[in-house]
Amino acid sequence: MDTKLLLSQIELELQKQVSRLDAPRTKALHQMLTYHMGWTGEDAGPEAAGKRIRPLMVLLSTASSGGNWQFALPAAAAIELVHNFSLVHDDIQDNSLKRRGRDTAWVKWGAPMAINIGDALFVISNQAILDLKENFPAEVVVRAAEILNNTCLELTRGQFLDMSYEERTDLTVEDYWPMIAGKTAALLSACCHLGALLGSADESKQEAYRSFGHYLGLAFQVQDDILGIWGDENITGKSAASDLLEGKNSLPILAGLSRKGKFAERWAQGPIQPDEVELVTRLLASEGGLIAAQEASKQMTELALMSLREVDAQGEAGEALFELADKLLKRDQ
Amino acid sequence: MDTKLLLSQIELELQKQVSRLDAPRTKALHQMLTYHMGWTGEDAGPEAAGKRIRPLMVLLSTASSGGNWQFALPAAAAIELVHNFSLVHDDIQDNSLKRRGRDTAWVKWGAPMAINIGDALFVISNQAILDLKENFPAEVVVRAAEILNNTCLELTRGQFLDMSYEERTDLTVEDYWPMIAGKTAALLSACCHLGALLGSADESKQEAYRSFGHYLGLAFQVQDDILGIWGDENITGKSAASDLLEGKNSLPILAGLSRKGKFAERWAQGPIQPDEVELVTRLLASEGGLIAAQEASKQMTELALMSLREVDAQGEAGEALFELADKLLKRDQ
Repeated sequence: MDTKLLLSQIELELQKQVSRLDAPRTKALHQMLTYHMGWTGEDAGPEAAGKRIRPLMVLLSTASSGGNWQFALPAAAAIELVHNFSLVHDDIQDNSLKRRGRDTAWVKWGAPMAINIGDALFVISNQAILDLKENFPAEVVVRAAEILNNTCLELTRGQFLDMSYEERTDLTVEDYWPMIAGKTAALLSACCHLGALLGSADESKQEAYRSFGHYLGLAFQVQDDILGIWGDENITGKSAASDLLEGKNSLPILAGLSRKGKFAERWAQGPIQPDEVELVTRLLASEGGLIAAQEASKQMTELALMSLREVDAQGEAGEALFELADKLLKRDQ
Repeated sequence: MDTKLLLSQIELELQKQVSRLDAPRTKALHQMLTYHMGWTGEDAGPEAAGKRIRPLMVLLSTASSGGNWQFALPAAAAIELVHNFSLVHDDIQDNSLKRRGRDTAWVKWGAPMAINIGDALFVISNQAILDLKENFPAEVVVRAAEILNNTCLELTRGQFLDMSYEERTDLTVEDYWPMIAGKTAALLSACCHLGALLGSADESKQEAYRSFGHYLGLAFQVQDDILGIWGDENITGKSAASDLLEGKNSLPILAGLSRKGKFAERWAQGPIQPDEVELVTRLLASEGGLIAAQEASKQMTELALMSLREVDAQGEAGEALFELADKLLKRDQ
C-alpha cells in the first residue's frame, strides 16, 4: 500500500482542522500552531513536522479491518493533534529548548502563550473527532470521542507520574510501566482502537487492535530508552548518553539500580558527569541494565505481534501495518 | 425554584467526574484537582469553590425550556470544569498568586504540575459531556460536545487576544469586544445554549438562549471592569483601583483613552502609582470612562433581557433564571 497518499491526506486534514483559527484577529495564533506543526517558519518541512506515525496507524487500522480509510481522516488528525498538544506542554514542563531541531513554542513566544497554543491544539483535536459525524452514525462518533478522551486522561496520569518521579530516589521497575503506559502506550493503543472501531471491527477484534497498539507502544518506549544510552550518536542525532546525564527514570537505569551494585552506588552519589559517561554506561551494561531492557523489549514486541496476528489484518493495509510495526521495533534512531 | 438542590447536585456530579483520577498511583493528582475545585485542603468550602453560576445556568436553561434538569447534570459539570481548566491555566499565565483567597495551583505545586492539572480538568470536561449519552440520543450528545468545544476554541482566541494586547499601546474600544466575547461571553453563552438543547428547545429558541448568555456575559464583564476601578473595596474584597495599577485593558480605560485628554496623557507616561490612583480615577471619570462603560453595560443588559423575554422561559426555573440574571447584573462584587 502506498502510504504516501495517506500521509499527504493526513497533512491536508490536519491543515483543514488547524485552519479553524485562521480568522480575523487570531491569524498570529494560527501561525503559532502552523509553526509547531512544521508547516511554516524557519526550517519548515517534513523534518519539522515529524513522521505522523500515529495518524498513519489510525488509517491502516481502519483499512486493514475492512473500512474506508478516507472516512477515518478526522480521527487520524485528532490523534496527531493530541500528540502535538502534549508535546507543546511537555516542552514547557521539561524546559526543552529544541523540538525536531527547531526552537520550541515556549522559547519563541514565552510559556504563557505556549500553554494557550497547546490548549488550542487539544480543543481542535476534540473538534476534529466530532467531524466523524459526516461519515459515521452518531453512536460511533460518541464512542470515538470517548476513546480519545479516555486516552487523554491516561496521558495526564502518565505525565503526572513522570513529573512526580523526578524527586524520588526509591523507584523500581514496577513504577516504570504505569508511567510509560500513560505517556507512550496509551496514544498508540488509541490509534489502533479508533481505527478498528471506524473499520467496523467487532468488539473482540477492536480489543486485539487496541492490545497491539498498547504493546507496540511499550516496546517502542523501551527501545527509545535503550537508544537513549547505547544508541549511535551519529544516527539518533542526540548524545547517546543523554539519559544518563539527565538522570532519566528509564528502564535500563531502573533495572540497573535494582541490582544494588556499583552502578546503584554511583547513581546515589549525584548527577553523572560527562567524563564519567563511558564508564557508567559500561557499568550499567555489566550489571544487567542493557539485557533487562532488551528482554523487556523483546517480550513486548512478541505480545504486540501476537495481537497483530490475532487481528488478522487484511490486504495491503494489513501488510503496511506489519511493515510499520517492524520499522518501529527495529529502528536505530 | 430552590436552587440549593440544584447546587448540591452540581457538586455531586462534579465530584463524580473528577473522581476519574481517584485511582492507584494518581491519588495525589486527584487531590490537586479537588483542592482547586475547593473541596479539600486549607480553607476548603463554598467560598473556595466559587458560586457555580455557570452550571446553574445550564440547569435552569434546561428546566425553563421544558426539560429535566437532572439529565443535564453532566453538561453542567462539563461547563464548570472548562471554566476551572481555564482558571488554572490563566493563573499561571497571569502570574496570579491567589484565587478565591487561596494559593493558586502553580504556587502550590509549580507551573509544570499546574499545566497538567488544567489539562486534566479539560479532559474530564470532555468526558463529562459524553456522559450525556445515558439520557440523550447520540446525535444530541455530539451536538453538545460540538457546542462545548467550539466554545473552548473561542476561549483560546480570547486568551490569545488578552495576552497579545499586553504589549500594545494603540488599543481602542473596538479591540475590547472580541477579547471579552471569547474570555467571558462565550462560556456563559454556551451554558444557555447547551441548556436549551437539552431541554429540546427548537433552533430559534436555542438561538435566543444562546444570545441571552452572550449579552449577559458581555454585560457581566463590563460591570466587572467598572467594579475594578470604582467598586467598593470593602465589598469586592480587592483593591478597587487594581485595574488602574495593573494597566488592564478594561472598557472604561479604553474608552477614556479614546478621549485623548489628560487621562490618556498620563496613561502614556507609564504605570500608574498607588498614590496617584485617586486622582487618575477622578480624571478617568471626568473624561467619560465611567459613563461610557455604564452605557455599554446598560445596552448589553437590555439586549440580554430582550433575548430572555424572547425565550419565554417557563415555570419556576424561568423565574430563577430571571433572578440569576438580575443578581449578576446588579451585583456590587
